Amino acid sequence: MALALNLGRRGMGRVWPNPAVGCVIVKDGVIVGRGRTADGGRPHAETVALVQAGEKARGATAYVTLEPCSHHGKTPPCAHALIDAGVSRVVVALGDPDPRVSGRGIAMLQDAGIEVTTDVLADQAGDDHAGFLSRVTQNRPYVTLKLAGTLDGRIATATGESQWITGPEARRTVHMMRARHDAVMVGAGTVRADDPTLTVRGLGITRQPVRVIVSRGMKISADCGLAQTAREVPVWLCHGKNSDPKPWTDLGAVSLPCDVSSGQVDPQAAMAALSDQGITRVFCEGGGMLAASLLNAGLVDRLVVFTAGMAIGAEGTPSLAAMGVERLACAPRLSLEAVQPLGADIMHSWRRI
Amino acid sequence: MALALNLGRRGMGRVWPNPAVGCVIVKDGVIVGRGRTADGGRPHAETVALVQAGEKARGATAYVTLEPCSHHGKTPPCAHALIDAGVSRVVVALGDPDPRVSGRGIAMLQDAGIEVTTDVLADQAGDDHAGFLSRVTQNRPYVTLKLAGTLDGRIATATGESQWITGPEARRTVHMMRARHDAVMVGAGTVRADDPTLTVRGLGITRQPVRVIVSRGMKISADCGLAQTAREVPVWLCHGKNSDPKPWTDLGAVSLPCDVSSGQVDPQAAMAALSDQGITRVFCEGGGMLAASLLNAGLVDRLVVFTAGMAIGAEGTPSLAAMGVERLACAPRLSLEAVQPLGADIMHSWRRI
Repeated sequence: MALALNLGRRGMGRVWPNPAVGCVIVKDGVIVGRGRTADGGRPHAETVALVQAGEKARGATAYVTLEPCSHHGKTPPCAHALIDAGVSRVVVALGDPDPRVSGRGIAMLQDAGIEVTTDVLADQAGDDHAGFLSRVTQNRPYVTLKLAGTLDGRIATATGESQWITGPEARRTVHMMRARHDAVMVGAGTVRADDPTLTVRGLGITRQPVRVIVSRGMKISADCGLAQTAREVPVWLCHGKNSDPKPWTDLGAVSLPCDVSSGQVDPQAAMAALSDQGITRVFCEGGGMLAASLLNAGLVDRLVVFTAGMAIGAEGTPSLAAMGVERLACAPRLSLEAVQPLGADIMHSWRRI
Repeated sequence: MALALNLGRRGMGRVWPNPAVGCVIVKDGVIVGRGRTADGGRPHAETVALVQAGEKARGATAYVTLEPCSHHGKTPPCAHALIDAGVSRVVVALGDPDPRVSGRGIAMLQDAGIEVTTDVLADQAGDDHAGFLSRVTQNRPYVTLKLAGTLDGRIATATGESQWITGPEARRTVHMMRARHDAVMVGAGTVRADDPTLTVRGLGITRQPVRVIVSRGMKISADCGLAQTAREVPVWLCHGKNSDPKPWTDLGAVSLPCDVSSGQVDPQAAMAALSDQGITRVFCEGGGMLAASLLNAGLVDRLVVFTAGMAIGAEGTPSLAAMGVERLACAPRLSLEAVQPLGADIMHSWRRI
């Protein structure tokens, strides 16, 4: 199952709207098939592994990181495929909460006389499928927020200089993180200040994450890199319903009109819009306004901070904008996941409590 | 020598103005004497160890973490004591740059026919004696700056609430760090905002570090805890030359008038004043104004940061006040020393580059 989870993980950020499932088929102690959900979400992991196993699947054990689907979607149900192939046992890491599956996949297998074991490495599978689970159960993607700043929590000087505070190792890690998410998200201020490309570079990735801009008023010049490359790598605009996404849409960007609250795009509405489009994992790279609004809305599942050995002082741009926190008891809190040196910087990650 | 360094380290924060030296005497493979510079700086480590060794010192090897002194100060020179005791070999970690010693201690030993080995674990000894070395060679103490804040670099809410951002493990570590420094330093703003005691608590320490307040104008009410306890644990005032330290001095606080620059107590002047009083190691606990001025003046040798899994946002009090850094190239930089989880928080330490 650990191998199946590893296989599945390779699909992270590349298989949405589907979960990044892994499957390993073992016959007489020998691996005869392995597969992960393919880029774009099809074929599913089980199908890939069964094709590889061929006739050897008969009487074999299949390890699958998520309950095999039981419904006819764009592909026939995987539970059927496993039954037709003649596997005698299926080991499942985690049940699929999708109302179209939700136990029915396992029941189909059992009805066909297949022995089914569940909840194997379920915690790890829960982490791996967190985006899919969040989308299915909460209608929002799993959100990772990245902050990269100085020892005093600044992301740029007063004059706007931000390149580079963190070192090449941290930046490379950011690119790896982008690649493992379905979408990369920034606020309008970051687009105006940094004109970022938000693509994954230097990692040989062919499937780029969707680039999402959150902007109530869409007062962003379309001369910037994101707009100009919107036909090459998708750009989606979570904008206020009353704002006009032209000329961005003329350049190929996708308009996702969202409700506005407190003068900003409502963060819940933006996440719901992305979920509706099939996005399961979002990597938010700021700026301070968007980061603060996501934290305040309780939408940050994981916070990854890169801290450089540098001090800028209070004139610098803060990593988080005003949050209206008057009492410590009201401040959003997270629990430590891991901390490590990374080049000349440190990386620390925190999880929703 | 590692044992001698360990012994010596126990004196940190307790032996100023002297260095925290350790000494181990070995005869025929058996430790016959061990000592560290005693609280208050006397007797020296060598004397303590020699007394313990007694007659067994004859023909023994003495391991000392700093070159034995060669001058008559408040105690007779340790080099003489080692010669008189009849040791046959002395192993020294580090030469003493004090102009009254500076090689003469080693020369005295060699002239008496004692075999001398130097530079054994010299790097570690250099770290341990950094405060003493800094005072002797630069006329300023070694400075450790502590910052304790949120993920976004805030040390209090807009309403001034700061207790507690970091957890009990971090606070306990701060008390241990206070105990290993000769003086604990804060700015006037911190005294007004937090009314801190700045003592070491919960560690069974009898010898408290000196409590130093840096304040240009001394506009701090003497009703606060520091003033009221100034006769129990020393309070020193690095204040502007034109300001009046009364009524603090009436309550037992010590006045150290300092030059003013850019409207604040000149940080170099404050450090020189402390060095003149014998202080070798200073632990600065903020606030943001003082921390920023020390960093800007290049006076921070070591920066220790405690980061809690909490976000306050931009209205919160920043850990560092304005520093006038316009270009990243001008921002103070430090190199990572260590990073680790500490309770629910993380602790990361950085060193002057």
